[in-house]
Amino acid sequence: MNTSKRIDALKQKAFVEGKFDGYLIFNSANLIYLTGYSGASALLVPRNGENTVYVYGVNYAQAEAELSEFAVELVKRGEKLTDKTAKQASALGIRRLAVDALNVEGWRSLSKSLGDGKTLEVDSRCLQELRRVKDENEVKLLRKAAELTSEGMRVAREVVVAGVKEYEVAAEIEYAMRKRGSSGVAFETIVASGVCSAYPHGGCSDREIHAGDLVVVDMGATYKFYRSDMTRTFVAGKPSKKQKKLYEVVRTAQAEAFEAVKPNAKAKDVDAVARKVIADAGYGEYFVHGLGHGVGLEVHEPPTLSPDSTDTLAAGNVVTVEPGIYLVGYGGIRIEDTVLVQKNGAEKLTKGPYTLGAE
Amino acid sequence: MNTSKRIDALKQKAFVEGKFDGYLIFNSANLIYLTGYSGASALLVPRNGENTVYVYGVNYAQAEAELSEFAVELVKRGEKLTDKTAKQASALGIRRLAVDALNVEGWRSLSKSLGDGKTLEVDSRCLQELRRVKDENEVKLLRKAAELTSEGMRVAREVVVAGVKEYEVAAEIEYAMRKRGSSGVAFETIVASGVCSAYPHGGCSDREIHAGDLVVVDMGATYKFYRSDMTRTFVAGKPSKKQKKLYEVVRTAQAEAFEAVKPNAKAKDVDAVARKVIADAGYGEYFVHGLGHGVGLEVHEPPTLSPDSTDTLAAGNVVTVEPGIYLVGYGGIRIEDTVLVQKNGAEKLTKGPYTLGAE
Repeated sequence: MNTSKRIDALKQKAFVEGKFDGYLIFNSANLIYLTGYSGASALLVPRNGENTVYVYGVNYAQAEAELSEFAVELVKRGEKLTDKTAKQASALGIRRLAVDALNVEGWRSLSKSLGDGKTLEVDSRCLQELRRVKDENEVKLLRKAAELTSEGMRVAREVVVAGVKEYEVAAEIEYAMRKRGSSGVAFETIVASGVCSAYPHGGCSDREIHAGDLVVVDMGATYKFYRSDMTRTFVAGKPSKKQKKLYEVVRTAQAEAFEAVKPNAKAKDVDAVARKVIADAGYGEYFVHGLGHGVGLEVHEPPTLSPDSTDTLAAGNVVTVEPGIYLVGYGGIRIEDTVLVQKNGAEKLTKGPYTLGAE
Repeated sequence: MNTSKRIDALKQKAFVEGKFDGYLIFNSANLIYLTGYSGASALLVPRNGENTVYVYGVNYAQAEAELSEFAVELVKRGEKLTDKTAKQASALGIRRLAVDALNVEGWRSLSKSLGDGKTLEVDSRCLQELRRVKDENEVKLLRKAAELTSEGMRVAREVVVAGVKEYEVAAEIEYAMRKRGSSGVAFETIVASGVCSAYPHGGCSDREIHAGDLVVVDMGATYKFYRSDMTRTFVAGKPSKKQKKLYEVVRTAQAEAFEAVKPNAKAKDVDAVARKVIADAGYGEYFVHGLGHGVGLEVHEPPTLSPDSTDTLAAGNVVTVEPGIYLVGYGGIRIEDTVLVQKNGAEKLTKGPYTLGAE
């Protein structure tokens, strides 16, 4: 990972463009982004002085072995992480400390330990702005995660048949991705069949799939911490006319919205493209969620594609495009790809046919 | 789920024994505990008035269908969850509101929306105290999760052989659990071989297992939101004398600590039993973590079994017992079961032989 480049970029944003002289990171995805390691409990980046990673005993030996570019500080039994980091921040002369995320109790404890005359401020913006533009190495990992995901969806298309249980479909998808090198699912696999397909987060139960059911399969692989997200909707058996018609609407909405993904596009305008196609077909009120979200170390991260988003897309963003129509009591259809914003448009990272099944 | 009983118990603790007249829940595990549903964003339990679940549009239809015992409130686009819950709390005349967990920004926003003359306090204790004593239904689900986990470990024992990659072992374990009905892993499966086995959280990479390697396999299934946690250590091929000797120490430590698990035992005393066995064998400094932790809706929850724990065990607690020895540069050994504290001792929920492999 280009962790030293990333830390330089954070220092530029927070200390040169911003008003801070120290940055304290607790969020686990931010910690992986800046260190490449998943066992850190905190990271202190001072304006002047050594970048220090804090780990508990259970992770100390591994951190020492893997984090050669950082000072590694052991949080001993009985020591408090907030005290320890505050003490080090004070020792380094930090007067305006930013913290990326903290619960109320942690905030109070840290403020107290820092002492008088110091400023403590929550700043989630700096790291969000960095993380939403993926670097070359991140794109490589996101491509690999998407490739594994596409392979999982290929298997899903084969195993969604009448008589199979939802969790059995998930088992086959996850096994296919895992044995090819996925480090696990990007989020809980959704296999929602029949009336449950009308719930966007319809879960994955022991329901048996019936002939003619709509089956929404929404899943993703993780590769070296980077995630992917893809949805296809199938019919077990022969699709009905109504199913085909609904599918065509969602298919068109997804295709047109994908065409609208490019640098400088307003996220809410991209959402509006899909929303208009669905509304024009008479299903506007049944598209009950935003069009998409950023994907990276987390499966939901900025930017957000929705009617009230204030985000603007930029090259290097990786986002989902996932319109849907959900008819309660009947069923639902969603189509989703994870796409990379390129200099002149966008590229689909997840790949697979757009059909309701083996028609 | 016995959600109405659980809400009654929370009201007793917070409103009758405690000083609050309203309780606001944001933590996702607490929300599942009290509603049986995973799509809620908040729950307001007032002293007087209806229990109200807050959901975003994406989950509204499902919540309406599944949560018959609650009022279901839609958080519309543009609305703020903290504002909406604060407004309802005020309308119900709540003056002393508890909140189970909140980040700094959420806290500030909620305090502001509540307005003057109201008290807002973080209280994680009430729900922790309820959740650590499992009810009958929870024990049933934890048993099932443990059964699936034991089945996964049976497969692990078969597939850990020289020439196989760590992630390939994980693929087989996870597939075995999933196709029998697991809803997914309880946490990221650890398959840590060779020198990596000396890191307690050694991960699961594309490293190929070599003959003679120690291989720590730490994993668990989830069943209807309830988790399990189990570790066995294997040797690929024939174990050496030193490996057998180390194994016997950890095996004895785990067996003796398990015998010490009973109601009213101090958690730190149970930890001390295992720690003494390992220290007496000369490896005290290489047991670099606590003996165990509670398991339920979360894989790490109270009570904690460690030298500085202040917890006391009680019937209905479900905890892990997992001593280990980690020799950096050589390898590590850990043995773990998830156990249920019974009236007169403890019962292992995870089950499997204690041997280094197919000796």
